[in-house]
Amino acid sequence: MTSTDEKWLEKKISRRNMLKITGASAAGAAVFASGMGPVAKAFGFDIFEDDLTAANKISFYGKHQSGIVTEAPAHVYFASLNVLVQSQSELQELFKLWTPLAVRLMNGEQLEELSHGGFTPPKDTGEAKGLDAANLTLTFGAGPSLFDNNKLGLSSKRPDELKDLPHFPKDQIEEKYAGGDLCIQACADDPQVAFHAVRNLVRAASGKVSLKWTQTGFTSTPKAKNKKETPRNLFAFKDGTVNPSPKSASDMKEVVWVQPNDSKSWMVNGSYLVVRRIQMHLETWDRTSLQGQEATFGRHRDSGAPIGSKKEFDEVDLDAKDDSGNPHIPANSHMALARKVKDRIMRRGFSYSSGLIDDTGAYDAGLLFISFQKNPDQFINIQNALGRADKLNEYITHRGSGVFACFPGIQKGSYIGEKLFNIL
Amino acid sequence: MTSTDEKWLEKKISRRNMLKITGASAAGAAVFASGMGPVAKAFGFDIFEDDLTAANKISFYGKHQSGIVTEAPAHVYFASLNVLVQSQSELQELFKLWTPLAVRLMNGEQLEELSHGGFTPPKDTGEAKGLDAANLTLTFGAGPSLFDNNKLGLSSKRPDELKDLPHFPKDQIEEKYAGGDLCIQACADDPQVAFHAVRNLVRAASGKVSLKWTQTGFTSTPKAKNKKETPRNLFAFKDGTVNPSPKSASDMKEVVWVQPNDSKSWMVNGSYLVVRRIQMHLETWDRTSLQGQEATFGRHRDSGAPIGSKKEFDEVDLDAKDDSGNPHIPANSHMALARKVKDRIMRRGFSYSSGLIDDTGAYDAGLLFISFQKNPDQFINIQNALGRADKLNEYITHRGSGVFACFPGIQKGSYIGEKLFNIL
Repeated sequence: MTSTDEKWLEKKISRRNMLKITGASAAGAAVFASGMGPVAKAFGFDIFEDDLTAANKISFYGKHQSGIVTEAPAHVYFASLNVLVQSQSELQELFKLWTPLAVRLMNGEQLEELSHGGFTPPKDTGEAKGLDAANLTLTFGAGPSLFDNNKLGLSSKRPDELKDLPHFPKDQIEEKYAGGDLCIQACADDPQVAFHAVRNLVRAASGKVSLKWTQTGFTSTPKAKNKKETPRNLFAFKDGTVNPSPKSASDMKEVVWVQPNDSKSWMVNGSYLVVRRIQMHLETWDRTSLQGQEATFGRHRDSGAPIGSKKEFDEVDLDAKDDSGNPHIPANSHMALARKVKDRIMRRGFSYSSGLIDDTGAYDAGLLFISFQKNPDQFINIQNALGRADKLNEYITHRGSGVFACFPGIQKGSYIGEKLFNIL
Repeated sequence: MTSTDEKWLEKKISRRNMLKITGASAAGAAVFASGMGPVAKAFGFDIFEDDLTAANKISFYGKHQSGIVTEAPAHVYFASLNVLVQSQSELQELFKLWTPLAVRLMNGEQLEELSHGGFTPPKDTGEAKGLDAANLTLTFGAGPSLFDNNKLGLSSKRPDELKDLPHFPKDQIEEKYAGGDLCIQACADDPQVAFHAVRNLVRAASGKVSLKWTQTGFTSTPKAKNKKETPRNLFAFKDGTVNPSPKSASDMKEVVWVQPNDSKSWMVNGSYLVVRRIQMHLETWDRTSLQGQEATFGRHRDSGAPIGSKKEFDEVDLDAKDDSGNPHIPANSHMALARKVKDRIMRRGFSYSSGLIDDTGAYDAGLLFISFQKNPDQFINIQNALGRADKLNEYITHRGSGVFACFPGIQKGSYIGEKLFNIL
């Protein structure tokens, strides 16, 4: 790197990152070699590294993308986008553009420090100025329609399992909450940080993407004796009790991460995201007896224990019967039906509350269901097992839906989704 | 209180409150004397006191309602409601019903401890179980239409200044975000706690009220050196810099709290709430130069300082000129216009981000503007001064509006809004 380059960089990057120039220049060289330099530089900087000194910071780089098995923070801004690019190389440029921005956002840094009196729009929209990284995670994925786009020439790269979800009984999917060529899942401790991230990624890609649908969500984790408990959904039931443990490498391998030969090679170490915008009919639910509510889920509301048991994590015994010979856990309860299949998924559920539904005045509230699995069939099998019988169907309506192939993690010097282009 | 009564109470109330039975019984007696007992008791308990030992707890009782000059927490769930009651006494019963529920909610308590196997719906919807009070505040107010309702016989109680806000230039108020007979402003550190509060109050009043419109909002407060800074809105500008200080009794008296002879006597120590759902056209804003953005507000974006000054709280000098003789702060900037009037208000701004607008795909995002003032004219005068000239008009559209007379604070043994019925 020449001395002139260094002066240029001094102006462009924050002081915090300045400390790392020496280390970064090696990565910078790798980046230029892989052809990323010009794109990143066009945005005003070309050094982008995880700032491990930043407060409340999740790493961007790694074997897997963040936001999949990372502990879910309190807020999500989920965005589904359509692409406007006209060629595969333009799509690559988009991902190359996003990579350093995502790194900076996850560092809690502004995309550019402001200089006063600017005659151009600021490169960062600025509403997260002064806030820290807030454990921001950004998860990028590609929807089935991306592979249908003939201009992009990606049809041969499409995994067989990446297709729009089938129609399930009682689905009422609305086009305005469905599908998308790409997704960005932004999760953070602070809703302003999550929103800021998506807004700035979409804005930097102006003319290359358009927003198809978005949804905010939140989750509130009770803490008892400093131990985090399983959060409750808006029906007051604990949500995520049976999740596999991110600490179990075998669970993650079995449930979440695509392994060699599971899918297209470019998806190895990636995962499939399923999103469902599920309206919960709170008014109807709130008129249901506690017994009816518990029979619907198959669990006790307060403790989260399977009906007839005491504790949330007690073994589920679907054959257990009460004194009259009736099963403790009704066969048509949500839990009993879901347990009929051996498939498992990694759930990251968020509640949403988005005002009222115009024509009915009912709460537009419910569950922004997000799950990760190495194959969308895991979700589909569970959803089919629930089928028409699920007692919960009375109280919910699925109104939004999407499935996205979330790329494997990004290595330093590479860029989001690179394997999609460079590996079969 | 008889021994039988005490046994009944032991079953009904949480252990935490049990410790206070002796103290509470005196209040209980006062309550029975004022005729509240039967209503409250019908809901299953009749002891309701601020639990000063609860974590993150704001007092319910006091000279003023909470949520007006209380430091704004990160989340709001604002609800506008219409009443379905048919008489003034039914309206009174509604407020009597809400009073003990509001106290319990603000204590972070469940409305009822669950007993398993209940054949009736649980009295608490339960999603806040395990969460603490989260600094919940509940602010109740009455809109102009409440006084137009002949069945309620309140027309003589209507303050002259309580009327629908006039049409301001460029307003595009939508009926679905306008007006309401009553409002509940629920603010909390946790969105689930705020939503839970409104949901449970509305549910307990089933058949007596219906939701007209609701809006969630959030605000993110940067902390530098452990000192809280002024939060930024979605245009990245600091919002609330010129707020009067709740610590200044004279400011509060001058700006916020209704004084004797200011309004109807029942409003003394109350305040008027103005709410505006203001869409911010982020896409247009984000194409505007920094200079243009700063000229729009009259302040520097990063520091919040008046243009030409260095620090957020520097004195504003509208006559200051640059070397070419042009005013630092443009005459049509939001700040310069707002300063033309001497009126002041107490702002509590929240950002909102509610997906996309169906027909345009633009962000349905902006500012849930809430202000408190002792007379709505303070807001009206400022808004009129902004008028057509305000440079900010290019970037915002007011889509929702409401004005509510927020009752004075509630004394133990009394109930929400009691003065409305008992004082001229």
